[in-house]
Amino acid sequence: MSVTSIPSSVSDLEAALAAATAARSAVGAASDEDRARWLDAIAEGLTAAADELVPVAHRESHLPIPRLQGEVVRTAFQASLFARRLRERTLFDVRVDHADPAWPMGARPDIRLGVRPIGVVLVFAASNFPFAFSVAGGDSVSAIAAGCPVVVKAHEGHPELSRMVAGIVVEAMRSAGAPDGAFALVEGKEAGAAAVVDPRVSAVGFTGSVHGGRALFDLAVGRPDPIPFHGELGSTNPVVVTPAAWATRSAEVATGFAGSFTLGTGQFCTKPGILFVPDSAAFVDAVAAAVDTPVGPMLGDRIRDGFESAVGALSDEDGVRLLWQGEPNDESVRPMLLGTTIDDVIARPELLEQECFGPAALVVEYDGIDRVVEALGGVHGSLTGTVQAGSDDDPDAPAVVAALADRVGRVIWNGWPTGVTVTDAQQHGGPWPATTAPNGTSVGMAAAARWARPVAYQGVPDAVLPVLLRDGETVPGRRVDGTPQA
Amino acid sequence: MSVTSIPSSVSDLEAALAAATAARSAVGAASDEDRARWLDAIAEGLTAAADELVPVAHRESHLPIPRLQGEVVRTAFQASLFARRLRERTLFDVRVDHADPAWPMGARPDIRLGVRPIGVVLVFAASNFPFAFSVAGGDSVSAIAAGCPVVVKAHEGHPELSRMVAGIVVEAMRSAGAPDGAFALVEGKEAGAAAVVDPRVSAVGFTGSVHGGRALFDLAVGRPDPIPFHGELGSTNPVVVTPAAWATRSAEVATGFAGSFTLGTGQFCTKPGILFVPDSAAFVDAVAAAVDTPVGPMLGDRIRDGFESAVGALSDEDGVRLLWQGEPNDESVRPMLLGTTIDDVIARPELLEQECFGPAALVVEYDGIDRVVEALGGVHGSLTGTVQAGSDDDPDAPAVVAALADRVGRVIWNGWPTGVTVTDAQQHGGPWPATTAPNGTSVGMAAAARWARPVAYQGVPDAVLPVLLRDGETVPGRRVDGTPQA
Repeated sequence: MSVTSIPSSVSDLEAALAAATAARSAVGAASDEDRARWLDAIAEGLTAAADELVPVAHRESHLPIPRLQGEVVRTAFQASLFARRLRERTLFDVRVDHADPAWPMGARPDIRLGVRPIGVVLVFAASNFPFAFSVAGGDSVSAIAAGCPVVVKAHEGHPELSRMVAGIVVEAMRSAGAPDGAFALVEGKEAGAAAVVDPRVSAVGFTGSVHGGRALFDLAVGRPDPIPFHGELGSTNPVVVTPAAWATRSAEVATGFAGSFTLGTGQFCTKPGILFVPDSAAFVDAVAAAVDTPVGPMLGDRIRDGFESAVGALSDEDGVRLLWQGEPNDESVRPMLLGTTIDDVIARPELLEQECFGPAALVVEYDGIDRVVEALGGVHGSLTGTVQAGSDDDPDAPAVVAALADRVGRVIWNGWPTGVTVTDAQQHGGPWPATTAPNGTSVGMAAAARWARPVAYQGVPDAVLPVLLRDGETVPGRRVDGTPQA
Repeated sequence: MSVTSIPSSVSDLEAALAAATAARSAVGAASDEDRARWLDAIAEGLTAAADELVPVAHRESHLPIPRLQGEVVRTAFQASLFARRLRERTLFDVRVDHADPAWPMGARPDIRLGVRPIGVVLVFAASNFPFAFSVAGGDSVSAIAAGCPVVVKAHEGHPELSRMVAGIVVEAMRSAGAPDGAFALVEGKEAGAAAVVDPRVSAVGFTGSVHGGRALFDLAVGRPDPIPFHGELGSTNPVVVTPAAWATRSAEVATGFAGSFTLGTGQFCTKPGILFVPDSAAFVDAVAAAVDTPVGPMLGDRIRDGFESAVGALSDEDGVRLLWQGEPNDESVRPMLLGTTIDDVIARPELLEQECFGPAALVVEYDGIDRVVEALGGVHGSLTGTVQAGSDDDPDAPAVVAALADRVGRVIWNGWPTGVTVTDAQQHGGPWPATTAPNGTSVGMAAAARWARPVAYQGVPDAVLPVLLRDGETVPGRRVDGTPQA
């Protein structure tokens, strides 16, 4: 399938899947160095084309130019960090247990654990990160790092950009020696749904709405042979302002929150959508004074309509009232704070589970940190949870951190959840509906493990073993007879 | 819920889930040393009661006494190995990334990755390992190691044993200081199904049939809030005898296979159910001469009926014929070899996917290793795949190893798949239907990761962090700024 021919139908999907399947063995047999070269070539291709890509991304997504420039840097960096970790041999969990006739449960054979690519990975691109969670985003490059052919279903919000980026990826991989068919782009909801149930697809990565993600998840798990579906669906990202933080840092907290919940016009999966504070009236006054208004444009009409509808539904709930709204922008979108009480959210935890994808948040006034902990115990999962504490020994903070850690994938202390660094220790996931697979992450180096299936090799001669499992190889972190090596 | 009151209905389930939920915070807050003590106490309790447990297990399962004695040793060892790895701080993936203002994609905050317990874990016990994959088996002890309360649904094949073991586990945990409610047993299919859809259950472990497992999987993923379902369902465990192995080691291969496919009356999930060999007539003669016949009794009438029905269905397939059957045992069960050709299985891969749980296997005569590799490419997943090779440099073996590694969780060289050691590098899983979650394992130390959800901590002060994430702590294998430490 040529990149320049724009695939847009199920018949193009057929070509993409046939080519990916044909490439599966060769892609999976490529060395770590081979894959690292492909990833570096993708990073270089994106960087070199940034000046052409960003204006197209701006036109299609309405996101500001500087933000998009930064997103290209992030996306290229992400690909090259996977390459670096492949070369350093630290991307995957590798274990060697030598034969042991005295193993207490009975003689143990030589057994070694490595990984194999899971197969063809289908990636659904997101609207709100046209680079970092789209065609060459984290799902795609982590799957390439794991040795999987990738078929991306483009997001309809930025079709021209998607085709340009796909062209860059295909050309970069080809020039770096990747097999034909290792990467393809398809378009259209029909092709996406057909791909999820196609027996040649072995796993799915998805970033998007609860509604759309759940429908595709249901297809993936309803197959005759269910497959892993790593979906990032929705998140309200609670923030707790402790009494001590409120007493000592209220202005800083209000300013930080004003910036975070309106950043990117609130169109982040990590937007802080719920905030617990001792005094909501004073808090809202301070936030209102700090918000840059009007907010920027939204990604598109469908997303704007969804925002208006979600905010309307939440406003209509008993006990929820409008506390503040800013000036409307050209699309009549206003930043907005709704309010309710701790009694209401304890009685009806679902009030904390209604994501409004856009510049709105629900402020919950509370009295006593125990009641906040109680409220958090009843809610669905989120990608993040934030505590705004007074000092490092704020007596209320540990209970809040513990409660958040049991509901979210990332706990932030005196920072804001928007802004997700790409690094080894990152975790972007959480219990439903934050993700459909809470043991995985879609950001950070551990993301590659989603597409790498563990395989044990028992009694296999050294020369036939995968390189990282052989005796004498230096593999940092490899566990040998239970003990990790440096 | 008292252990001595035998739970058998949904109302007992209610008590078990209420107690597990109430215990969730305390179990999750317990230190690694606390959990290690609980696990050691379970191991000691099982070992001390072995002489009372084994006769009950024998009466209920019909498995031989020595096998059951060995299984108690294995089960106790498994619990104590989790305890040891907890104390050594090597059970989970832990990462520390310090703040870095020069991080290439933009300044990086301090971010550290640990794990939190996933929540209440529901375990479905298996029939064929009344200790090792049952009440105190791998799913249960790995979940306890991860800090999760456990509710086990007993297998109806060994109810009295299940109650005795549950009593030992509850008493051991209590005496070692675990919170009440941390462990409970429930009985009955109705209670099991109700538990899968209960909002208080966060994850499920299952070992059993494709039919039963799929029904429960469908319930778990069909919830309003889908939860992880780690099911081990079915496996045909292909074996490939290379031409060189056949030329040089045919007697040894036949003898080994005879022992492996009839071990435990063929009632292992890892029973070699498919064997590719250059000359099936000569192979079958040699196997027939080596099988101990009649075979032992089966686990129960339902499993015997299932075996007869599966063997009957496979025999009725076009191109499949009976090659050999041994003397019947008291239940009229005969060990059995069916045969077909490589042409048939390439044309109809489903012939390789029909598990007969019992002492039967399908022998596939082939001509040319390429055709075996082609046939393996079309089949569903299995827990294991075995190559019987000539020498370490058998020219046909690498292609077979590669083909198997892409379809199974464990590749065995010149050994047999029955017999699954418990160790760090073990992997007991594989693509559907071997497991519903192919990135997980139900045996070995990595099994605990299924119940441990990664959580990142951003900017959290040292004193508030989980211990293993703090500066200055010695945690073997911890990645610090991307580099694993010894």
